[in-house]
Amino acid sequence: MTSASEVKTDNSQTVDLSRIRVVLVNTSHPGNIGAVARAMKNMGLQQLTLVQPAVFPSAEATARASGADDILARARVVSSLPEAIVDCALVVGASARLRSIRWPNLDPRTCAERMVEVAATDQVALILGRERTGLTNAELEYCHFLVHIPANPDYSSLNVAAAAQVLVYELRMAALAKVHVLEAPWRSDHPFATTEELEGLYAHFERALTRLRFLDPDNPRQLMRRLRRLFNRSQLDRMEVNILRGILAAAEKGGKGKPGS
Amino acid sequence: MTSASEVKTDNSQTVDLSRIRVVLVNTSHPGNIGAVARAMKNMGLQQLTLVQPAVFPSAEATARASGADDILARARVVSSLPEAIVDCALVVGASARLRSIRWPNLDPRTCAERMVEVAATDQVALILGRERTGLTNAELEYCHFLVHIPANPDYSSLNVAAAAQVLVYELRMAALAKVHVLEAPWRSDHPFATTEELEGLYAHFERALTRLRFLDPDNPRQLMRRLRRLFNRSQLDRMEVNILRGILAAAEKGGKGKPGS
Repeated sequence: MTSASEVKTDNSQTVDLSRIRVVLVNTSHPGNIGAVARAMKNMGLQQLTLVQPAVFPSAEATARASGADDILARARVVSSLPEAIVDCALVVGASARLRSIRWPNLDPRTCAERMVEVAATDQVALILGRERTGLTNAELEYCHFLVHIPANPDYSSLNVAAAAQVLVYELRMAALAKVHVLEAPWRSDHPFATTEELEGLYAHFERALTRLRFLDPDNPRQLMRRLRRLFNRSQLDRMEVNILRGILAAAEKGGKGKPGS
Repeated sequence: MTSASEVKTDNSQTVDLSRIRVVLVNTSHPGNIGAVARAMKNMGLQQLTLVQPAVFPSAEATARASGADDILARARVVSSLPEAIVDCALVVGASARLRSIRWPNLDPRTCAERMVEVAATDQVALILGRERTGLTNAELEYCHFLVHIPANPDYSSLNVAAAAQVLVYELRMAALAKVHVLEAPWRSDHPFATTEELEGLYAHFERALTRLRFLDPDNPRQLMRRLRRLFNRSQLDRMEVNILRGILAAAEKGGKGKPGS
């Protein structure tokens, strides 16, 4: 049996985010705790630690967690940040602001790559601070580096659950990239057409369009080139070639065939 | 002065996401509309279109929007999806599910690159469906591509605002990356066709194929859906739409027209 954080993917490789912990510090709104739990489970994370939450447990957190109430049920509540991260080999703090004292600052993608790398063997923590004021300077000093979501400078403060969603999404993407399971952009339900089949299609177009007097062989202009460019970039599958040739055949007969023939 | 969608970045180059529209279809919970507006403004997007929202405007939406109430104030409310996207040259639908008929499916990163590329010159739409049931098959057929967030297969349904947050974050990342990037994957020598022009093409196909007795209106099977999928993923330009409609017109006349007409 596979756990939620060690799921079977298309090619039977596993994504393991089990050593990455999300730590929420002094969260005011229980709805945000629930939304973070849902975001975590959606992306395959399990460990949630709450440092002095204002209200927990709470019906609002459970409602917003939707089917991720198991993450809430197993959440650890502690009284200080050091307690939450004592066993971690890498500690990253989410930060919206530029700080008076500069701390190493990574974008979410680079950050996720490093976290996933370390989490192959060690415990790693991602810390998100208070809704209005983020992390204190004292808390910041526990962090190896900060992660900053490159938001609109005129309106840069993300909701804490939205920030968590972006960061755990990048963790999953980094883990997937590591096992190379990101999907091909276009894969049909039928085999791709071969060059031979495509050439058959283009020859059929040329014949039919000439017969329909749409293509003038003495003055072909760019017509066939444009059709080739169109269908080539579409990566036709075999079924689509058959449909197009069926349409051409019907057009050649001028509608005198059987329906669907 | 720079607008929210054309902000100064660290290296003093501009990020322009002003032609990318978020379309929410039949959203049930006004809180989600507010959270999407906040996510959009955080990432520098401005255009929000609501297709038959359950409740709007609403105090809950305004509260969750936080400082992004200007996005809500300017949101356009329409009564159908086609109305929301009629002028768009690229339409992308967010999808959690695997479909019976496969539609080209991109991960959020690849998707964002394409959207930002097209949005340099044309209107682009990102569609998010209903909280529980997503998009219908009929709505899906307007999409050039689907975008799928590679979630935990055991718990894959993201909250609609969380999904929007991930997708607009990737749009911003792509826009930031693009100020360093050169070549486009596909950029035609003619303007991209809009939804209105594509719908005109599909209606013409349906009419012509029925007349040619290739399509049986009483038993249409998957034919029109397969043609839509093929041409949507090809991102047709206006010249190509004209060529295809010219071929259909010639086929309807049964080769009795002038060459090249």
